[in-house]
Amino acid sequence: MPSALIVRPVAPTDFPRWAPLWEGYNTFYKRTLPGEVTQMTWSRFFDSYEPVHALVAEQDGRLLGLVHYLFHRNTTMIGPICYLQDLFTDEAARGKGVGRALIEAVYERAKEAGVSDGEFHLERDGPWPTSLPT
Amino acid sequence: MPSALIVRPVAPTDFPRWAPLWEGYNTFYKRTLPGEVTQMTWSRFFDSYEPVHALVAEQDGRLLGLVHYLFHRNTTMIGPICYLQDLFTDEAARGKGVGRALIEAVYERAKEAGVSDGEFHLERDGPWPTSLPT
Amino acid sequence: MPSALIVRPVAPTDFPRWAPLWEGYNTFYKRTLPGEVTQMTWSRFFDSYEPVHALVAEQDGRLLGLVHYLFHRNTTMIGPICYLQDLFTDEAARGKGVGRALIEAVYERAKEAGVSDGEFHLERDGPWPTSLPT
Amino acid sequence: MPSALIVRPVAPTDFPRWAPLWEGYNTFYKRTLPGEVTQMTWSRFFDSYEPVHALVAEQDGRLLGLVHYLFHRNTTMIGPICYLQDLFTDEAARGKGVGRALIEAVYERAKEAGVSDGEFHLERDGPWPTSLPT
Repeated sequence: MPSALIVRPVAPTDFPRWAPLWEGYNTFYKRTLPGEVTQMTWSRFFDSYEPVHALVAEQDGRLLGLVHYLFHRNTTMIGPICYLQDLFTDEAARGKGVGRALIEAVYERAKEAGVSDGEFHLERDGPWPTSLPT
Repeated sequence: MPSALIVRPVAPTDFPRWAPLWEGYNTFYKRTLPGEVTQMTWSRFFDSYEPVHALVAEQDGRLLGLVHYLFHRNTTMIGPICYLQDLFTDEAARGKGVGRALIEAVYERAKEAGVSDGEFHLERDGPWPTSLPT
Repeated sequence: MPSALIVRPVAPTDFPRWAPLWEGYNTFYKRTLPGEVTQMTWSRFFDSYEPVHALVAEQDGRLLGLVHYLFHRNTTMIGPICYLQDLFTDEAARGKGVGRALIEAVYERAKEAGVSDGEFHLERDGPWPTSLPT
Repeated sequence: MPSALIVRPVAPTDFPRWAPLWEGYNTFYKRTLPGEVTQMTWSRFFDSYEPVHALVAEQDGRLLGLVHYLFHRNTTMIGPICYLQDLFTDEAARGKGVGRALIEAVYERAKEAGVSDGEFHLERDGPWPTSLPT
């Protein structure tokens, strides 16, 4: 029986397991990112000054999915918007609620931080794909 | 003959002339913002720590339009995204290129700041209205 | 026997218990802050975009001390500096290690966030008082 | 007769002329920075999201001095602190008011941005050296 799914912030040692998920996500969107962009984004997850965050879903020592979110200002609100930018689940683990668990964990953390429902926004640059990679 | 259109950053003394444009913009989107939100957004334009900016278009001492933009992080870029959030032209001044002048001024400022074309994005929470309030 | 001392992030409901500590701290420095500054600082603790944080020390339902810290850039480092700005312990609870527990909790949180020892700085605008209010 | 001293923001093409000043400044403080720190700090001057800024003093096509400043939060103020972190004048150009011109330019820019005198602070990690490198 598989152990429980854990959703937690990424740790510096996760890089070798996070990188393939990140690549899978970018491949889904048919793009290749320069290595220096990946390096910078990764380092921002651990820079307490940057409002950029990453959670991973782990089960039995494997990383099954990732979610990246960031906070930014908005002219129509006092508090920040929570922009859930990236969401991806390993293909072998889809349809098992990993994506939903990741999204819920972001909501929970935003609420703990005092962000009210009305000020929590899921944003996309474009429309979400009809079949999400989760 | 009207004097030239000037696009410039808002100044603290502009509030009484900026507020009606901001209200016109919000009315266009059929929403009313609490006064404290307007007050906070206004104060952020003059807070050097906040990456939130406003330009106004002025002619013959009248403010004809506004544009609000802000910079925020993005996981797929090293530099920030420039999010052009609000754009509005006074109804009496539409069709004269005020909106275009405001957008171009944002582009110009972003370029001066070293943001390359590829890293400048105009974003909208939703689609731009077919007839923009400019 | 008193229960264990707990150090935790402030919660919105802590305001009535945090405010007297904050006032005690400012009185120690012989200054009075306008209410709107206190209000703004308090709201920043719960604004996920702001790199401003507060921990409190709690025992038997009472708040015994506070620590406020924030992250900011520095031209000589890649990561941010952790600026431990305010530290205060209720007079009746001094000499019991509350201040030390609060400082250690900030260190721990900074380390969890990936900040290395070399990049963690305790800063003061002026010298710390010879007898700290802790 | 030398032409007027111009104080202006650094531009990306200034790097080869700015780097020796930055190295001179760090040598004055008896430290060597890793190249990647210099690279990151330099790139932040051109990142509109980062509240980190640099001005240079130029005369007859030569850069004579630099000043680096950044804005950050403070628990006792609504607006940000302006932290003037680095100040350096080329040895051959000292005693001619270059340092003063650089500091005044920072003040002026902070005032334009709406920062009041009371909220403008010059800070130092340690005391300024008795003989400033300006």
